[in-house]
Amino acid sequence: MSIEPLQRLINFFAQLPGVGQKTAQRYALKVISYPPEQVEQFANALIEAKQKVKFCKKCFTFSEGEICGICTRRDKTVVCVVKQAKDVLSMERVRDYKGTYHVLGGVLSPLDGIGPDQLNIAQLIRRIGEDVVKEIIVATNPDVEGEATAMYLAKLIKPLGVKVTRIAQGVSIGSDLEYADQVTLSKALESRREL
Amino acid sequence: MSIEPLQRLINFFAQLPGVGQKTAQRYALKVISYPPEQVEQFANALIEAKQKVKFCKKCFTFSEGEICGICTRRDKTVVCVVKQAKDVLSMERVRDYKGTYHVLGGVLSPLDGIGPDQLNIAQLIRRIGEDVVKEIIVATNPDVEGEATAMYLAKLIKPLGVKVTRIAQGVSIGSDLEYADQVTLSKALESRREL
Repeated sequence: MSIEPLQRLINFFAQLPGVGQKTAQRYALKVISYPPEQVEQFANALIEAKQKVKFCKKCFTFSEGEICGICTRRDKTVVCVVKQAKDVLSMERVRDYKGTYHVLGGVLSPLDGIGPDQLNIAQLIRRIGEDVVKEIIVATNPDVEGEATAMYLAKLIKPLGVKVTRIAQGVSIGSDLEYADQVTLSKALESRREL
Repeated sequence: MSIEPLQRLINFFAQLPGVGQKTAQRYALKVISYPPEQVEQFANALIEAKQKVKFCKKCFTFSEGEICGICTRRDKTVVCVVKQAKDVLSMERVRDYKGTYHVLGGVLSPLDGIGPDQLNIAQLIRRIGEDVVKEIIVATNPDVEGEATAMYLAKLIKPLGVKVTRIAQGVSIGSDLEYADQVTLSKALESRREL
């Protein structure tokens, strides 16, 4: 039995990250059990998200307009540098950060041919001059490339008289020391703070 | 940061079974990274699946037309009875079944107020007369309600001179006896076959 329109929908769902044929089938069957208006709204939401979600010209985060809401309304003197636009969504879950962002669009990775010119670093330097930036918080991932990128940025930006900080590395809140890896524990010990 | 069109799409994905906010966000970000044509095709697939996938008037399986392809082309004298339309998709993965299906639309469950009149049983009886059915294979789930429904159907249909069979219950292929539950093992022992 092949019902072409159903199979086509299943194939689209199966292209989503981590979704196999069985899960895609569950999604498709769920959708066709919706009332027609809801399916239409879902379809419109897909098209609208694609049409309306652009990237901010200043910080390269997702934005509806030319310049995003964060760049227009928040403290431009503190800039948090992240690897990709979706990292901004993660950071924004921390409700108490009041500064702005800058999306690099990747991290330094010579083996993959990604050097400083492939990232939005020139634009970051320009912002430092324009917005009188006081602090750059480097929030790239705590892996080899993320660390290397942080080091590179610090070397580049510190001479401009701007404070460059790195998000802290240590044991996760709510985790168990028993399951923390050696490198994390060693970092946590090294970066210990007085109580 | 709330980007309304993105959030709306995330909310639609989050309504799919087993999808939380984080997974929905991954799906939405993946979709907006597609080329515009692909997003449009995805949206069309949603609407077309809803519009074109109907239920067969005869067996109540998913169908594009009034009567499904299985009912029109395959052996009408053998009918496999299942609980829901999606069970037909599972059964069809077994490529060697050549008969037709009948979807009950549920199973007997007195506690939930589901009796024979709430299920497509009258239609099944009608088909037995019309199509000179020789065998009814009851493929409801191997749980309490599924078993009760199978018993009920056997009692109802056997007097009409039709063979009523039940799919075999036993240990799953490729599984390990160590992990088989008691009831399954007991069933497997009871239904043993001579080699």
